[in-house]
Amino acid sequence: MKLLVEQSALAHALAQTTRAVSPQNALPVLAGVELSARDNSLHLYATDLTTALEAELPAEVVEPGQIVLPAGPLTDLVHRLPTALVSIESEGATRATLRYGRNQATLNGYGEERLPEFAQLARDQAMAVRLPAGALADVTRQVLFACARDETRPLLRGAVMELGEGRLVWAATDGSRLSQVWWPLPDHLETPARWVWPAKAVQEAARLAGSEEEPTIWLSPHLVQLAVGAFRLTSRLLEGQYPEYQRVIPQQYLVQCHVELAALRGAVERVGLIAQRDRTTSLRIVHEPGMLEISAVSQDLGHAVETVECRSEGQSLDILFNPHFIMDVLKSLTGEEIVVEFAGTQSPARFREASGSTYQHILLPLRQLV
Amino acid sequence: MKLLVEQSALAHALAQTTRAVSPQNALPVLAGVELSARDNSLHLYATDLTTALEAELPAEVVEPGQIVLPAGPLTDLVHRLPTALVSIESEGATRATLRYGRNQATLNGYGEERLPEFAQLARDQAMAVRLPAGALADVTRQVLFACARDETRPLLRGAVMELGEGRLVWAATDGSRLSQVWWPLPDHLETPARWVWPAKAVQEAARLAGSEEEPTIWLSPHLVQLAVGAFRLTSRLLEGQYPEYQRVIPQQYLVQCHVELAALRGAVERVGLIAQRDRTTSLRIVHEPGMLEISAVSQDLGHAVETVECRSEGQSLDILFNPHFIMDVLKSLTGEEIVVEFAGTQSPARFREASGSTYQHILLPLRQLV
Repeated sequence: MKLLVEQSALAHALAQTTRAVSPQNALPVLAGVELSARDNSLHLYATDLTTALEAELPAEVVEPGQIVLPAGPLTDLVHRLPTALVSIESEGATRATLRYGRNQATLNGYGEERLPEFAQLARDQAMAVRLPAGALADVTRQVLFACARDETRPLLRGAVMELGEGRLVWAATDGSRLSQVWWPLPDHLETPARWVWPAKAVQEAARLAGSEEEPTIWLSPHLVQLAVGAFRLTSRLLEGQYPEYQRVIPQQYLVQCHVELAALRGAVERVGLIAQRDRTTSLRIVHEPGMLEISAVSQDLGHAVETVECRSEGQSLDILFNPHFIMDVLKSLTGEEIVVEFAGTQSPARFREASGSTYQHILLPLRQLV
Repeated sequence: MKLLVEQSALAHALAQTTRAVSPQNALPVLAGVELSARDNSLHLYATDLTTALEAELPAEVVEPGQIVLPAGPLTDLVHRLPTALVSIESEGATRATLRYGRNQATLNGYGEERLPEFAQLARDQAMAVRLPAGALADVTRQVLFACARDETRPLLRGAVMELGEGRLVWAATDGSRLSQVWWPLPDHLETPARWVWPAKAVQEAARLAGSEEEPTIWLSPHLVQLAVGAFRLTSRLLEGQYPEYQRVIPQQYLVQCHVELAALRGAVERVGLIAQRDRTTSLRIVHEPGMLEISAVSQDLGHAVETVECRSEGQSLDILFNPHFIMDVLKSLTGEEIVVEFAGTQSPARFREASGSTYQHILLPLRQLV
């Protein structure tokens, strides 16, 4: 392989594609990025076996070929090269030499080891969906934090995307909280369908989509693909029956409070300082008409109590939450005013923006024995 | 204790003083900050037993008294308070309640445990020295990185300050490198004297001095003190005989190179990428008249070689350095051009700025058996 490529284009393409590389690799070669030179372009490919990122950039190819090079060192080096052009020349798959001006660096490759080929998505047999502008960014911000972190239910580590009934819906749940966001999307599917994306695939897709107006994704039963400019993300979808989470969303609430977001967030943040230091401490919310009282008691640290005014309807109520989870949802909300609804001391509560939002978060309270 | 204080002043004072608290504490109470209310002021005090930071801020004291509160939670909480005024009321040394508007938080204190009293510096028996503007900041940037990190020679973990012969000199060495910076300071001492500051004391003093024109420090044989506005730092000095480091500075050099700093730094940074991944790899510098060749070979990763033009005098030479140490000194230098001097393959090299600098760095090469 021998080629000449622009330093800035290569640095950018490496920075984007090598994000697919996982810090923990089952195989050494998965720490690598594959460079393939053919026709007048250089193709980059990196994967963690679940998600693949690829880039295609113009290059003057003198001799076609390919090699896998260590992703981190190559990206760091190319990022720091001082010249406008870089030549890359490989000796088989053993090593490649980068020449820049009169200087050079040689990186060892992985020899005969190749990056595993990633499953191909046949676009002509896949479904194309134009996503609403900013949808992937919203999902990243408002939905992904509710994904499960542990491995006990792998499917819950992903976010579910649903199409049908004139809507696009994204949701994620870890079993004790649920985030859901939706958009009208009239042109699709009479029978609803679901796809569970790995959280990392959503993040990387949102990053690739960037400010792209209405990015198109292709969906097959097992794969999803997004292409933006010279970059392409392909990800396996998670397999299995995602739980019917809609059933946990209360249909009726006993209490509805309209409350200023900044005031509630400030109170929860301060009282949470007491609660969060002590892993056993919960955040208590007491509703009295026109008022929410936020409090926490920590054996070690002390206690705090704040009141926040609200416009509310419904009964008095005393309910306990995980302080981290409450902060997470308050950070994911925007706007001046939010609506907090309680369905009872042991029933899920709902948080949403007051003005025409299509985002809601359902949070299970902590159990109270007495 | 009962008092009323401005939130912004208290938040700032806590942020400054609680920097004295060490993350690892021998005694639980050392994680605390002491609040003492007397007359019309609130006094804050925190220490790691080596360095103490204090602040004095105006307060409306209703009832004098004092209490030690956990530094981290108190600082975090006060930083987030929404009101202009905060009242603090303690119940003995057991706990204190902060009230802000109609809300409140109570933090547990350390009971009868008190912060150890810090040695007092008697200013009338101490020597006052007006430091040149920016001196402490320069020492932080150009000298402290050469301090030892390990515990084998505790004195080398500090920086030595010398007064005498019309100069103020600061230096630090870890045994394989030495940084030294000096200023003319005509008014002091006929017999030279030395004080070894803990590195943390220099850092905190530089931070306190900030943009203060010519900060005054007070020196006793065992203590140093700096006061800026409402803040005061007092630190123990390190005891012992600091090595006579001047003897390791070569008086004569075989090679002198004038080289563009940015060009050399770029080359060392790129070649260093190869060397730094592999802890056994060194950075090789070869001098030929008019040229420095920088190279590294890593068994695992590959190899790199760059040349940098220079104006040089002296013989050809081949010398090995620790790649991290070379990068450290190149980061500490400023200006367009630097001077690099070699005294031989096994002798210390010197790095300094080309134009009228009073900073120099001496770096011992790695040994070469063959």
